[in-house]
Formats: sequence, structure tokens, C-alpha cells
Amino acid sequence: MTRISFQRKLEDLRQRLLETAGIAEQTIRLALEAHRGDLSACARVRRNEEIINRCEREIDQMALDILAMEQPMAVDLRFILAAIKINGDLERVGDQSMAIALLAEELALDPAQSFPVDIPRMAELSMAMVRKALEALAGRDAELAASVLAMDDSVDELNRKAKKTLLDCIAQRPDAAHSAVNLLFISRSLERIADHATNMAEDVIFWVRGSDVRHGALQSSIPISPAL
Amino acid sequence: MTRISFQRKLEDLRQRLLETAGIAEQTIRLALEAHRGDLSACARVRRNEEIINRCEREIDQMALDILAMEQPMAVDLRFILAAIKINGDLERVGDQSMAIALLAEELALDPAQSFPVDIPRMAELSMAMVRKALEALAGRDAELAASVLAMDDSVDELNRKAKKTLLDCIAQRPDAAHSAVNLLFISRSLERIADHATNMAEDVIFWVRGSDVRHGALQSSIPISPAL
Repeated sequence: MTRISFQRKLEDLRQRLLETAGIAEQTIRLALEAHRGDLSACARVRRNEEIINRCEREIDQMALDILAMEQPMAVDLRFILAAIKINGDLERVGDQSMAIALLAEELALDPAQSFPVDIPRMAELSMAMVRKALEALAGRDAELAASVLAMDDSVDELNRKAKKTLLDCIAQRPDAAHSAVNLLFISRSLERIADHATNMAEDVIFWVRGSDVRHGALQSSIPISPAL
Repeated sequence: MTRISFQRKLEDLRQRLLETAGIAEQTIRLALEAHRGDLSACARVRRNEEIINRCEREIDQMALDILAMEQPMAVDLRFILAAIKINGDLERVGDQSMAIALLAEELALDPAQSFPVDIPRMAELSMAMVRKALEALAGRDAELAASVLAMDDSVDELNRKAKKTLLDCIAQRPDAAHSAVNLLFISRSLERIADHATNMAEDVIFWVRGSDVRHGALQSSIPISPAL
């Protein structure tokens, strides 16, 4: 096994991951099209989610093969670990997109309602986070990845606001409760997608810099014994 | 580096994972105590969640060190990959437990309400799934792990029922909407915990048998090109 073939395998893994990431990003977009009323997008979300699931298995197998047949070290080893984790997050982005599409189908059965909740803004932010995390992966750019982490709070805040607003709407218009609750879950799914983008960005930083930035790792001081 | 020290490292990794798993299981239990009214449990959930986060980083580092310094093959390599994935799921179980504890705090601020929703049954099932997945991990028992997969549908069904029941309650008692929505999110968190138990069980099966059982991998036949 020559060194060139090892580098080729790593590059194949990165390409496959980026392809899957592109499909995942597109699947969020399709789910949001369904939410905006084009229910024909739901079937496409379902098909993409199945493809992402299959890609997940293939990427894991590629990573396993490289670990088994080569002895990757340092930055290459970190890349493979990051790839395995990002792969898992992409699969969950597919799940959340599917959840949004199913909620959109349910919403379409209710009488049309309008709520003062900024789902488009949340969607835009979450998708931008996913896109930036993937650009950081493609460009090996830890700085760009770090900028994703800073965006997560805005999405969390929009999700909190959406919950408050929708609960107020239900109090005033109980007949709109079904739609409002489904919209609450869509908001929650977008917030989860932003969390997955954050995870992916952290994995890119770990790959490139070799430092673990999860859970504010650098400044933690936590008691040893768990609570019972 | 002798073979014995390699086996010792693997065993240390497995022990650390099982310890973390024990803390995660306990943290779900504490979150449910908070839901049943003992809000003092919330602080303990928060402390445990931080410990689980720290354990996640340590376990990842242990796995990385073994991959870097040894050349694990076949079943050992699969174990390390399974450990990395199970580690991620345990961290998310901690997150969901924290979410339940925060919702319990919010619920306690509302006037006491009672809803015909079987949260205790869902909680019992989800915790049993986590416990079985961990027993399967401890005992290297793929059969026990497979029994976890069969339980997931029941939790999904209970979650669907809870959503329907709680929406009916909101329609009849709009003033209870806030509590009902929070209970809906607790139900959803329990369903997510069951999903994580399912993931962990799949990883145990992959480790022991070397077969990938995710997403019905064995019978899949999916179109190649993604939807645009």
C-alpha cells in the first residue's frame, strides 16, 4: 500500500462526506419548501433521507477500512474521527428534515393560519450554519468553523421566542392549537439542525487544530462525583 | 507495547464507557424525579450533565490514543468505533435529561394540572431500553441488543398518542396549553432517549457481529440520485 493510495482514500472519504453534506443541505431546503406549501417536496425529502442513511453506512465503512488497512496518525487520524462524527450529524439533519416535512403535511390539513413567528429567519440561520460548517470542512478552515459556533445562540433565542409567541397564540385562539403546536415542533427541529451544524463545526476545529472545543472544554472545572 | 497493555487499554475504555452510561441512566431517573415534583433533582441533573460532557471528551481521547498507538484490528477496531458512537449518544441522553428537568421547572410554575398521558410508562420503557443497551454493551450480548430495537416502536406509538391526547386537552382547556405543551416536549425527549438507546444497541450489534443493522441495511434498495 503506497502513501499515494492512502491519501487518495482520505480524499475519497472527504469527497463522499461533502457529497452527503450537499444532499443534507438540499434536504433541509426541500423540507422548508414543503412547509411553505409545496407538499410535493415531501416525497423528495423522504427519498433524500433514505439516500443519506445509505451514505452514512458507506462512509462509516470507508472510515473503518482506512483505520483497518492503514495506520493513520495525527491530523489524518483526527480527520477520520471527525468524519465519523460529522457523518452521524448529517444523518440526524436528514431525520430532522423528514420531521419538518411530516409536520408540514399535518399543518396542510388544518385551516390556513398565520402566526407571527419568524420561521424563515430561523431556517435561513440554521441553513447558513450547516453551509458554513461544510465550507469549513471543504476548505479545512477552523476560523470559519469557529464562526458557526457564535451563530448558535441566535437560533436558540429565536426558538425560545417562537415558543413564547405560539403559546400566546394558543391562549388567544385555542382552535389554532394544532397548527401552533406543529409549528413549535418545526421551530424545535430547526434549532436541532443548528445544534448539528455546531457539532460539525466543532469536529472541523478538532480535526484542523487538534483541540477539543466542545462544552467549553478549555475553561471547565466540574466536580468529580455524579449526583445520585 | 505489549499485547496485555493493549487489552488493558481496551478494557479501561469499556469501563469508562460503562461508568458514563451508568451516570446517564441515573440522570434520566433524576430528570423524571424533577418531573414528578422534586425540583431539587434539577441541580443534580445539571451537575451530571456536565460530568457526562467531560466524560465524553475523555472517552474520545482514550479512543483516539488507542487508535494512534496500537493498530487495533477486526473486532477490537469495531469496538472502538462503537465506543465513539455510544459515547456521542450518551452525551445526547444527558442533553435530553437536562431538557426534561428544565421543562419540569417550567411546569412547576403553572397551576397544577393533570393530563391523561402515560409519561411514567414512556419513561419506564425508555429507561429499560437504555439499561438493556448498556447490559448488552457490558455483556457483549448482540441478542439482548436486538431486543432493544424491537421496543422502539412502542415508545414512538406512546409519543404519538401523547401528542393526540394533549392536543385534545388544549382544545378543551386552553388555559392548560402551557403545561400541555411542556408535557408534549417531555414526551418528545423521552422518545429521543429511546432513539439513542436504539442507536447504542445497533452499535453493540455492529461491534459483536460485524453487521450494520441501521436503517434496515440488509434489505435496502434505494435510488441513487438525490432529489433536487
